[in-house]
Amino acid sequence: MKIVPRNRLIYSFSPQHKPVEHVKLGEPVLLKTEDAFGGQIKNEKDSVSTLDWSNVDGATGPIFVENATPRDTLVVEILDIKVEEKGVIVTVPKCGILAEKRFKPSTRIVKVSRGYVNFEKNARIKANPMIGTVGVTPKKETPTGSLGRHGGNMDVKELTAGTRLYLPVFTEGALFAAGDLHAVQSDGELCVSAVEVSGEILLRFGLIKDKKAEWPILEAKDWFAFLACGDTLDDAAKSATEAAVEAFMREYGWNFERAYMFGSLAANLEINQVVDPKKGVRAVISKDLITLDSMLT
Amino acid sequence: MKIVPRNRLIYSFSPQHKPVEHVKLGEPVLLKTEDAFGGQIKNEKDSVSTLDWSNVDGATGPIFVENATPRDTLVVEILDIKVEEKGVIVTVPKCGILAEKRFKPSTRIVKVSRGYVNFEKNARIKANPMIGTVGVTPKKETPTGSLGRHGGNMDVKELTAGTRLYLPVFTEGALFAAGDLHAVQSDGELCVSAVEVSGEILLRFGLIKDKKAEWPILEAKDWFAFLACGDTLDDAAKSATEAAVEAFMREYGWNFERAYMFGSLAANLEINQVVDPKKGVRAVISKDLITLDSMLT
Repeated sequence: MKIVPRNRLIYSFSPQHKPVEHVKLGEPVLLKTEDAFGGQIKNEKDSVSTLDWSNVDGATGPIFVENATPRDTLVVEILDIKVEEKGVIVTVPKCGILAEKRFKPSTRIVKVSRGYVNFEKNARIKANPMIGTVGVTPKKETPTGSLGRHGGNMDVKELTAGTRLYLPVFTEGALFAAGDLHAVQSDGELCVSAVEVSGEILLRFGLIKDKKAEWPILEAKDWFAFLACGDTLDDAAKSATEAAVEAFMREYGWNFERAYMFGSLAANLEINQVVDPKKGVRAVISKDLITLDSMLT
Repeated sequence: MKIVPRNRLIYSFSPQHKPVEHVKLGEPVLLKTEDAFGGQIKNEKDSVSTLDWSNVDGATGPIFVENATPRDTLVVEILDIKVEEKGVIVTVPKCGILAEKRFKPSTRIVKVSRGYVNFEKNARIKANPMIGTVGVTPKKETPTGSLGRHGGNMDVKELTAGTRLYLPVFTEGALFAAGDLHAVQSDGELCVSAVEVSGEILLRFGLIKDKKAEWPILEAKDWFAFLACGDTLDDAAKSATEAAVEAFMREYGWNFERAYMFGSLAANLEINQVVDPKKGVRAVISKDLITLDSMLT
């Protein structure tokens, strides 16, 4: 098993970055990851006003995946996610979906233990460890804090252990990186931060040759989802819908009208996050009604 | 039990409409409802291009609920929903989330039986009978095809038998109406129509005196949701978030910052529909983490 340590961080996905590791298809890889703040927030007196922002949103990598070539689809099998006990959540003035309200920077340190996040004595939430940032390197350098067709800071609460992520490959070796684990996050990530934690991701790569995912595709036990984004939620919803309707046309050989109707019944638009300049919407389709092959081009 | 027949339809919620029935609190009421097209689409040769649009989006009612007074909250317990076997779905040029694409008016008649919607031979979907339009009468006349704080054409796929809906009362007797059943609809209702069916709704009214729901609130087995709307999905998401954060402040006695953080972990933003001029987003909160009392003002 290859292990990539926590100090191998990148802050942008860039074709210029040298890979920190080369891995073979099927080989288990353990990525150790830093929290979104680079571990800078140690107690509730630390707040975002004293952060070194150049150390924020780091992702562990990049990893060169052997045989991955542009026009392939990288398969990322998330085998396990472990999160540390200490989590951090913050409010950042002028950030989040209620950015126009007046409020202060504030910090809460929470304990994650026995499957729960202890936010307050009378308010604990079931933990749901998930990956905030995961992607391959696009042709043009892109900050790890942003998202796009290459993945990135997608903040999808369903991106948990046991799922598979399909990403379009843009560069030789894919140059994959991941980080920004959350112990729990709601659909929307309303205040701009979730329970940010350091931890470990155990994963394994596969490859689908000469087939492309137009958007990242997430596979869970019972469904597939296109993970789209756009400047507004409405734009993101539109892109997710287009991807779903085109997939139905390929799956069933229908015309646009028939596939559009079917989308109205079978493609659920769900919100990933609303707090990045690019908003994220997923189109979720039951595995009864679509095959992966029709979702690729 | 009071029965309201299918021909008692309104096309706007208006304080001027005479109630078609007076009911007592706790008394079961059976509403017979017409499909969204007023039964005008009988086969696949009928399309929206030949519709009489003045007979579209009818709701059965209005019903005067005894003792309901402005500033109360009306409780609508959905005891049962029955849908007919024949469902209709259409595409309407320049409508739906992909309105800017070029496509034709088209109609599909589908059979709803044994718990499934048979869209095509090789594409059947589990039925999920739900109410598209349900609301009380606001102060100002509003078309039944639109939505707002009074409810209306909210198209929430979770509004099924076994749920409870809480609506703010604006007029004496609330003047309640419902209709527009769907045999199945995805989150988003992408193409502007779902599987539109006629049917029956069995319900019962209750009342919470001197407490107000700022937005309609839906109660399912395990969660509550604020049902907000806005001119864009982003606006609707903002309103749903504000409602959730304010409810957390009341529930836990927290300041804004603490409640905003908690929203990022515990309030899930989900999409109702994206195809009305007003888009709909719900903020879903587990019953472990909120009480109804804190959601009312």
